Amino acid sequence: MSNGALGRRVWVIAEGYIPAASYDPHPNRAMVSHEVACILNTGDQPAEVAITLYFADREPVGPYRVTVGPRRTLHLRFNDLHDPEPVPRDTDYASVIRSSVPIVVQHTRLDSRPPPHALLSTIAWAE
Amino acid sequence: MSNGALGRRVWVIAEGYIPAASYDPHPNRAMVSHEVACILNTGDQPAEVAITLYFADREPVGPYRVTVGPRRTLHLRFNDLHDPEPVPRDTDYASVIRSSVPIVVQHTRLDSRPPPHALLSTIAWAE
Amino acid sequence: MSNGALGRRVWVIAEGYIPAASYDPHPNRAMVSHEVACILNTGDQPAEVAITLYFADREPVGPYRVTVGPRRTLHLRFNDLHDPEPVPRDTDYASVIRSSVPIVVQHTRLDSRPPPHALLSTIAWAE
Amino acid sequence: MSNGALGRRVWVIAEGYIPAASYDPHPNRAMVSHEVACILNTGDQPAEVAITLYFADREPVGPYRVTVGPRRTLHLRFNDLHDPEPVPRDTDYASVIRSSVPIVVQHTRLDSRPPPHALLSTIAWAE
Repeated sequence: MSNGALGRRVWVIAEGYIPAASYDPHPNRAMVSHEVACILNTGDQPAEVAITLYFADREPVGPYRVTVGPRRTLHLRFNDLHDPEPVPRDTDYASVIRSSVPIVVQHTRLDSRPPPHALLSTIAWAE
Repeated sequence: MSNGALGRRVWVIAEGYIPAASYDPHPNRAMVSHEVACILNTGDQPAEVAITLYFADREPVGPYRVTVGPRRTLHLRFNDLHDPEPVPRDTDYASVIRSSVPIVVQHTRLDSRPPPHALLSTIAWAE
Repeated sequence: MSNGALGRRVWVIAEGYIPAASYDPHPNRAMVSHEVACILNTGDQPAEVAITLYFADREPVGPYRVTVGPRRTLHLRFNDLHDPEPVPRDTDYASVIRSSVPIVVQHTRLDSRPPPHALLSTIAWAE
Repeated sequence: MSNGALGRRVWVIAEGYIPAASYDPHPNRAMVSHEVACILNTGDQPAEVAITLYFADREPVGPYRVTVGPRRTLHLRFNDLHDPEPVPRDTDYASVIRSSVPIVVQHTRLDSRPPPHALLSTIAWAE
């Protein structure tokens, strides 16, 4: 039981798209085009998180597994997911995020294709 | 019945506006000014989706019909809707999205009028 | 009674700020820095809408009154509100939007201070 | 009791990141990279607000305390929080905002690292 944990156990991000390009061929990590699921675990138990990716024309891929410690936030870059397979660039996708304990998820993209960059962010859908 | 399908059957995007211009007269498809309804169908049944468009000064238009396969996402460009009529550019509109099964909808715009582009995104309103 | 009207009767936009400047001293209307409440009335009755503005250091101002026809959307610019008084520029504010029938409200800002412009948008809070 | 106060008492912003850099080494306050929690208190009682910050690799910090007067909005810059300690720049964080009375919270970032600036905003998660 996770007493005091805020949020929900199932979250959905219907938007998903990592631009392959960044304006600088060798940008620093902060300015590489990326997509993030900001996950907050306010509870006292670790959040065992499983992410499934959905695509336009093939079966879902996953689960990708990460752990968010108690009272910790993880700003997880989809760019960094590699197991079971990397997230394809320039490709429409969506994601479902399931956690063992309540969490809160916010979705952000930094798009640095042309200089300068553009940003978007929204609270995800909580089932 | 759609067991396991996440989301809701009715979604509303009160904002809607497709800029007529893009900064490059012949941009690639990714950088054309566009507006998207990102639809995720996590269930095992096809989602039969009907979209109605609302305007400032005339009766609603629709339904526009699309199908999102089971366990698939469709990032639907309003720019690509043509039947019963194209979506006018540089015109305020809004949309209601009704589905035969639960889905999740997120709204995104890429605005490439002046270089570089701007982005916005938000989860839609779920009735 | 508003049968079939989607949404809620009370909405809150906690963010509010209209930049005084636009990059072009004589921009066309589309590119002037502005803030919008996109209102959708899907019902068969007119929506009588009353907007109250809240500030950091003085009492609220309002109501500002607008009507959104049945099956119509109004992308209302806060820039255009003048009665009982104009909305001050470069000033933090917030707004509460009350309607006689259910509506859906989405908040958007176009900020064209430095070229090019930036955009933000989010679904408002529905009480 | 806060009769008429809109919103909720507990809000979560899972995204949090203040860029250390701004494009102008001496920008005016409006254009410094910053992150804001826009708080609206529509009620007739002061809102005693306590903010806790969560990080990736250490224990939470807080509470930071602010008061939002009755019928007032406070667009609180995380940049301005100093007690018990400043908010680190270029660092992932998240926040939980608890209030003595119902409030509404919207999250906005202005990122002016490269010129021009980018904006994001979303309604926060209401527990």
